[in-house]
Amino acid sequence: MLSHSKIKFIKSLAIKKHRETTGLFVVEGVKMVDELIKSTLQIHSVYYTSSFRDHLHNTSKTFDSDMITDDELQRISHQKTPNKVIALAYIPKKFSASNKGLKMALDNIQDPGNLGTIVRTAAWFGIKKIYCSPGSADIYNPKALQSTMGAIFNTDIEYVSLDKILSDFQKKHIPVYAASLDGHNLYTAELHENAVILLGNESKGISSELMPLVTKKIVIPFYGNSIIHTESLNVSMAASIICAEFRRRQYVGQPYNP
Amino acid sequence: MLSHSKIKFIKSLAIKKHRETTGLFVVEGVKMVDELIKSTLQIHSVYYTSSFRDHLHNTSKTFDSDMITDDELQRISHQKTPNKVIALAYIPKKFSASNKGLKMALDNIQDPGNLGTIVRTAAWFGIKKIYCSPGSADIYNPKALQSTMGAIFNTDIEYVSLDKILSDFQKKHIPVYAASLDGHNLYTAELHENAVILLGNESKGISSELMPLVTKKIVIPFYGNSIIHTESLNVSMAASIICAEFRRRQYVGQPYNP
Repeated sequence: MLSHSKIKFIKSLAIKKHRETTGLFVVEGVKMVDELIKSTLQIHSVYYTSSFRDHLHNTSKTFDSDMITDDELQRISHQKTPNKVIALAYIPKKFSASNKGLKMALDNIQDPGNLGTIVRTAAWFGIKKIYCSPGSADIYNPKALQSTMGAIFNTDIEYVSLDKILSDFQKKHIPVYAASLDGHNLYTAELHENAVILLGNESKGISSELMPLVTKKIVIPFYGNSIIHTESLNVSMAASIICAEFRRRQYVGQPYNP
Repeated sequence: MLSHSKIKFIKSLAIKKHRETTGLFVVEGVKMVDELIKSTLQIHSVYYTSSFRDHLHNTSKTFDSDMITDDELQRISHQKTPNKVIALAYIPKKFSASNKGLKMALDNIQDPGNLGTIVRTAAWFGIKKIYCSPGSADIYNPKALQSTMGAIFNTDIEYVSLDKILSDFQKKHIPVYAASLDGHNLYTAELHENAVILLGNESKGISSELMPLVTKKIVIPFYGNSIIHTESLNVSMAASIICAEFRRRQYVGQPYNP
């Protein structure tokens, strides 16, 4: 049986401050916990209902585990309809220093759903490394995490000053492509595979202090009359279209020139 | 001053049943109401705080309007931080019979945020007509509506049996492209501009009874090792990438053959 203090502890991890103090975050549901178990992440503890028991046999990882009732699950879950299991995992502190291939940098993305969806999309397109500015939403926020659909466990997500990171890339002649409404047409721009895709805040776009570090601004062309339109694209939609275009070029054997 | 019954009436429109009975839906915030006023939709009434007053001068539309206090706005709003104005508008009942150009059909999209984002993305890519199966989320749901960012006012969204609609297109030799994991590579598939993009439910995909009406299944290629991957794409991400690819071909003068 779960003690009152344990329930309180697990629930407290919905709040960023408590995640930072403890170094732990909450993973919910069968698919997500299955992915966590398969990943390289370190697990602190697993709270599971009887039907999840078999999932715990196929791992050599060591962690505390407690079988709980549906009622107890309901009490520790952050979701309306919890799904069989909740795990606590350690927030990774070590990051890959490799910077080969396509990477992403996110400047103050505020909506946890947008952030999680971008991570999910990046994983589909084989992007293993995402840099987030410290002012971005927290990927370990329950909503952001759920939106990744498990992709978070295969992606290196580092909160770091983008100023520093992009300066490093500039020195190494690795191009930084920034999504911006005054950019070059994505479809006719030259795109390099070993590069960084930079996306900005939902309403303010990319911070002005990062602009000198941008190699090329790119835009997804609006279809129709560009003078009267009031439409815009959600940042996660823009991310998905830009990633797709990089990979399309590689598929059709056209990575460098359109 | 707003009467108690009027407040109750406006609040009740958060529920689909009440929207259906009254034929009305709620539009919130400066950007959305500005777009509504500019659109061809009929407006029932506008409840505005003093700073929105000037926005009402530039329209020949007739509707009731009431200046209200910030406190009253807070009481009728469905949002945590209401933004100056709320309007009630009539749900359109007449739909365009034109079926030229690129169209979209949505089969039981369940998440209001996904639905709204798809409408927003479709507008960016000049898609004016979207068919939704009756089991889809309601686009007049406050969350769906907000996710459209106003694009709903320039898009013809019709709830209708997709079976009937797609049969009609089949008879007219208008191709139906369905997003499906066992489809042809989007980037090498032949795509016609006068066509329908069909997208299915978030977890179940496209209903089996619609499959005989599909001209071609298409897939956004996964980048990486396709055997071990567990990743998937959110339906609104898939929608955005597919729309983008149709328009990219037109930009580069390659509408029919890759």
